Amino acid sequence: MALASRLSKLGTETAFSVSLAAAEWGAKGNRIYPFHLGDLNLATPSNIVEAMDRAVADGKTGYCPAAGIPQLREALAEDIGGRRGLVYSPSQVVVQPGGKPVITKFIQSVMNPGDEVLYPNPGYPIYESQIEYFGGVARSYRYLPTSTGFRIDLDQVRSLINPATTAIIYNDLQNPIGAESTDDEREAIAEIAIENDLYVLSDEAYFEMRYSGTSKSIASLPGMQERTVILYTFSKKFAMTGWRLGAAVGPQEIADTIVKLNTNDESCTTHFVQYAGVEGIHGDQTEARAMLDVLVERRDAAVDVLAGIKGITVSAPEATFYLFPDVTEAMVAVGAADVVAFAELALHNTGVSFCTRRHFGRPQPGEDRQYVRLAYSGIDTADIREGLGLLQKWIADA
Amino acid sequence: MALASRLSKLGTETAFSVSLAAAEWGAKGNRIYPFHLGDLNLATPSNIVEAMDRAVADGKTGYCPAAGIPQLREALAEDIGGRRGLVYSPSQVVVQPGGKPVITKFIQSVMNPGDEVLYPNPGYPIYESQIEYFGGVARSYRYLPTSTGFRIDLDQVRSLINPATTAIIYNDLQNPIGAESTDDEREAIAEIAIENDLYVLSDEAYFEMRYSGTSKSIASLPGMQERTVILYTFSKKFAMTGWRLGAAVGPQEIADTIVKLNTNDESCTTHFVQYAGVEGIHGDQTEARAMLDVLVERRDAAVDVLAGIKGITVSAPEATFYLFPDVTEAMVAVGAADVVAFAELALHNTGVSFCTRRHFGRPQPGEDRQYVRLAYSGIDTADIREGLGLLQKWIADA
Repeated sequence: MALASRLSKLGTETAFSVSLAAAEWGAKGNRIYPFHLGDLNLATPSNIVEAMDRAVADGKTGYCPAAGIPQLREALAEDIGGRRGLVYSPSQVVVQPGGKPVITKFIQSVMNPGDEVLYPNPGYPIYESQIEYFGGVARSYRYLPTSTGFRIDLDQVRSLINPATTAIIYNDLQNPIGAESTDDEREAIAEIAIENDLYVLSDEAYFEMRYSGTSKSIASLPGMQERTVILYTFSKKFAMTGWRLGAAVGPQEIADTIVKLNTNDESCTTHFVQYAGVEGIHGDQTEARAMLDVLVERRDAAVDVLAGIKGITVSAPEATFYLFPDVTEAMVAVGAADVVAFAELALHNTGVSFCTRRHFGRPQPGEDRQYVRLAYSGIDTADIREGLGLLQKWIADA
Repeated sequence: MALASRLSKLGTETAFSVSLAAAEWGAKGNRIYPFHLGDLNLATPSNIVEAMDRAVADGKTGYCPAAGIPQLREALAEDIGGRRGLVYSPSQVVVQPGGKPVITKFIQSVMNPGDEVLYPNPGYPIYESQIEYFGGVARSYRYLPTSTGFRIDLDQVRSLINPATTAIIYNDLQNPIGAESTDDEREAIAEIAIENDLYVLSDEAYFEMRYSGTSKSIASLPGMQERTVILYTFSKKFAMTGWRLGAAVGPQEIADTIVKLNTNDESCTTHFVQYAGVEGIHGDQTEARAMLDVLVERRDAAVDVLAGIKGITVSAPEATFYLFPDVTEAMVAVGAADVVAFAELALHNTGVSFCTRRHFGRPQPGEDRQYVRLAYSGIDTADIREGLGLLQKWIADA
């Protein structure tokens, strides 16, 4: 008996090791400032909880269709389409236990072994894992710093395309770097996809998690709806990460294969949770909007302190709940050999816990700046100021 | 752009088409007697619902560990081990969104492309689908009728083994046929697994869904715990099908790979639902036991009427909520060309809706008797008597 060889190609999320290190340091009696969590310490809106309770009381505890309840598919088709200027049929919406399952189901639906798929690096580590696990070749593209944030290296994207390329994963409003494409950049990615007849997975987990302006979807560009699968999730906007509710939205033939994968993989998404989702879409938005007010206050507090730290530069993205500061000089100042050592030293000297660029992919050739990811979704404003103040003092005293 | 070729090997559950046909016939104003549902029309015990509500109120709405909350893993290790005379560490229990995900994750963990896996036919159709989808060779083994039910054709099982065989899927307390192994049969399967160094997936979805006697697990036999993965689910015993809560329990190295698959596939199982599971295990069992009283009454009513129908023979399993009557002569009596036509005629002449043997795999060579599956989990006793009474009259009048 031996385990299957495919497992050697399965990646994971190494960010959990940061949680573990923080918990261990905290267990020794140290104060922890948790900037490592990609989770929200805010309550799910009460009207959403009440809608779930009503569904349970109404007996929605048995199986439902593999694709999701019709009411949620209709609500999502209208809402997701409406926000993007597109028309989707409910049949093109397939409910999922979270946004993440869309990644593996997209890869399984469009990629053959040996096919190449482009993905962002730094980026969500499951992209690379699933491409490689299903026998594809994962080709990463990079971001370059600009005066206000980051941009995709479009020349590199173009250079990576070859006849084996079948799809590109695009994560506008990006985790971990918080970058948002300009219209030109989004259009360039679309042009590359169309010219090379690629499928696109558009990870839009943070589409509605923004503080100003309006998000745009690559699916809205001409010629794109028919080749794009949108990853939608309730996790961020409604503070529902642990509820596991999301959806894949895309071309009918891919939606149909994803329904069949649902039937094989998990039967259906938790039945009564889907009624909570309907309330999220159609119900009162007061509490969901109030969360954004809390988050932008946290962002401003974090950027305010970070901007005053010698050797750290940071931009203030209008979306996501992540900051991706360049810590290259600060790292040198405290005598850290690399960014991993910097994170460990920061934890042990200040209690400030965060992920590094290394948790989001292998560094690209020639990458010479050092970054960390600070999430402000799981820590209150007062603690943000206190923790980053300690970080500032530690670096200043070094 | 073309969809991935692996999709051509993905099967599905065709039983959903029976639900659709029944719904369409009902929409025309006809009374339907639903024996096709593998679902329960009983409420989840109220103490379980209350435990979920408490967890939500307590803020258990964020992510939890990919393997499940420690409290549930501990409760399951103790409960599943205790009922089987085995000791499991909580680390060997991996929480899943239902029992079904254990099938694909087991296959992915132990089977390489080209490996052969034995599975029961008739049986749950996802076994064959997942073996073939991941590039294996699905080898079905059959059941033979006995005076009291069915037995596995052990000679056939032995004949199917070859050096490429890597695993056997074993579903004691079987869906759809309701069969339970004798001790001898279970020991023979274990002996075959040990002699040929096979992994075993023991689908124990109905282990606690029984009316008399005590279930035994193949994992309890000497030399078996280290090669067996148990599929556990809350769906049946606690009427929680739509909650999506189950677990994989097995050797540490497989448990570890399944945790990694969880991280890739869905992050975690719905957080607050896991607290409901803890209550299911540790809490008051009054309502769960009362469900068994309801179900055995239904079974007895169904068997009572079926036994009086000319051309139908049926046994009364002590477990599951399925009956698998031989309808060969009844089929001939009503002039049905095959069992599929028999089901359609029954629906249109009596409103009685059920699945057939064909929904649980391709008929085996030489299989000459015709069977249907009646589930009594989704229909009340009075309707069971009324519907099957109509079936009796229709066949008698033919």
